[in-house]
Amino acid sequence: MAEKVKVAVDAMGGDHAPAEIVRGVVEAVSERDRIEVILVGISDKIEAELAKYTYPRGRIQVVHASEVIATEEPPVMAIRKKKDSSIVVAMNMVKNGEADAFVSAGSSGAILVGGQLLVGRIKGVERSPLAPLIPTSKGVSLLIDCGANVDARPSHLVQFAKMGSIYMEHVIGKKNPTVAIVNIGAEEEKGNALVKDTFPLLKNCSDINFIGSIEAREIPNGYADVIVCEAFVGNVILKLYEGVGSVFQAMLMQGLMSTMRSKIGALLVKPAVKKTLKSFDASEYGGAPLLGLKGLVVKTHGSAKAKEVKNSIIQCITFKEQQINEKIKKNLVQEKV
Amino acid sequence: MAEKVKVAVDAMGGDHAPAEIVRGVVEAVSERDRIEVILVGISDKIEAELAKYTYPRGRIQVVHASEVIATEEPPVMAIRKKKDSSIVVAMNMVKNGEADAFVSAGSSGAILVGGQLLVGRIKGVERSPLAPLIPTSKGVSLLIDCGANVDARPSHLVQFAKMGSIYMEHVIGKKNPTVAIVNIGAEEEKGNALVKDTFPLLKNCSDINFIGSIEAREIPNGYADVIVCEAFVGNVILKLYEGVGSVFQAMLMQGLMSTMRSKIGALLVKPAVKKTLKSFDASEYGGAPLLGLKGLVVKTHGSAKAKEVKNSIIQCITFKEQQINEKIKKNLVQEKV
Repeated sequence: MAEKVKVAVDAMGGDHAPAEIVRGVVEAVSERDRIEVILVGISDKIEAELAKYTYPRGRIQVVHASEVIATEEPPVMAIRKKKDSSIVVAMNMVKNGEADAFVSAGSSGAILVGGQLLVGRIKGVERSPLAPLIPTSKGVSLLIDCGANVDARPSHLVQFAKMGSIYMEHVIGKKNPTVAIVNIGAEEEKGNALVKDTFPLLKNCSDINFIGSIEAREIPNGYADVIVCEAFVGNVILKLYEGVGSVFQAMLMQGLMSTMRSKIGALLVKPAVKKTLKSFDASEYGGAPLLGLKGLVVKTHGSAKAKEVKNSIIQCITFKEQQINEKIKKNLVQEKV
Repeated sequence: MAEKVKVAVDAMGGDHAPAEIVRGVVEAVSERDRIEVILVGISDKIEAELAKYTYPRGRIQVVHASEVIATEEPPVMAIRKKKDSSIVVAMNMVKNGEADAFVSAGSSGAILVGGQLLVGRIKGVERSPLAPLIPTSKGVSLLIDCGANVDARPSHLVQFAKMGSIYMEHVIGKKNPTVAIVNIGAEEEKGNALVKDTFPLLKNCSDINFIGSIEAREIPNGYADVIVCEAFVGNVILKLYEGVGSVFQAMLMQGLMSTMRSKIGALLVKPAVKKTLKSFDASEYGGAPLLGLKGLVVKTHGSAKAKEVKNSIIQCITFKEQQINEKIKKNLVQEKV
């Protein structure tokens, strides 16, 4: 029998906690035999939600944590002060080996800070990037880094490219993934100081499939599988992606409802349009891993519903099975020698 | 009678040159009495296009320039070597006061470099930003800087905020325009070093309506009228905006054509959807000014057709009429004292 994968889940994080989180957990354990979940948070509330479902009891455990970190709290302070918060308690479980992974829809800042301070980085990893999958017309690309590591150095970006390639190949299943660096032109001599310094280093990496620069315009076309950038730029890309998509959808809907003729047409096109929009929906792919930590930490959208929570939990199986951290360790340590 | 506005137009730049450029010029002079255009480029080709139209002959002059700068040419070299190119000849006309403004759909790099080297910056202006208008659900915002000034300093961003406010108020007609700086969170303490250093400087500017940080997600909602960022980030925003929009449209069209039912519906929704998409089309607003130069330089999209060329030319009237450069000079020189 395959080894179990123990996932600690933050029951209190996100806009739809705890209801959608608990539902996602129940769906995950129902769908995959190998998963065991530890739901961390205010136990009364968790138990009240769990009572709504039938599920294999032995595979969901509840661990009480009396505090909750809110999204707007300054992260460093929150992690230091709220020792009995769901995020801190669950991250300590990963650190102590009681859980393989941690999934949360809670405060991004607290998850990023907690990941570095509590779980800790793999030796040799300089920074731990947040790497969400973004939808493209060809499928999905990994955008690395979108975290809080602003003002990165070239050596950080090189590590991001390596870790991102490993994740994309072994977790998402993309063979020999292409890697590109975000730039303001296709030519090697273009870019800011960081990109100009990083470009030749990436070009010299024999263990990644570096294809050069990517202009932002090409990102939605799926031009590269792993898209490397520093976190400020990554954050802008990720959020603008969501913003343009949702404004576009809202305007489209408004347009469809604007005349009698278009309203009738809207009834006919709705199923097809819905299907199209769904293929551009990142929640299908689960959450964003924080790579290079001693355990796996996955951040899902604050707005995550059950399906995204379930997919994020299931993604932890592949991460463990494929020994991603061992691969990262081996790859980055080799590099150092 | 109001003063004439003389606009030099690059007849050779852009994907649809010279045909669409010449058509745009003819439309502009036909629509507005005050405009005089100098079409610069290979005269045979220009004359052949002009021969297709009826227009007030005295208001379009052709000036021959034997060379053309291609988009892929290294800009600095091109500007230095191709002395008889349409871009260099036309920019020299602006420099010498023979033209008030220059409009081109040609090589962005060459226009940016030529603007600085040939036309020259207003005294006191540290850098000349490229400031396109981007469509939002509320109308349009000015994104400043999207040029080639990477690795900017805080003082540059402060000047961008001031020049952008002047342009937005007096050319676009937005009273007391709101100004925000692109950031990865709404709080003052967030951001990279550049943003953290710039934020308090903007907060202390009494002559702009600074409203704080803007996350990329809020840009398409029209949260701020003037969006300040350094050029690398601005370039990413601008290009991603275009990229997500066009992939989204393509996928939508694919979805509409996917079933018999949706095809019938598509016929009914088409006019309404087209209208919606049009309101999200930046070409309605003309081109992007390169601000802070001794004359006006306007860069239109490489894909610009007649309408965008026409709108870009017409926008030069307001720029001159409102004495934008005098306002910039006064504002930035005051600041220096």
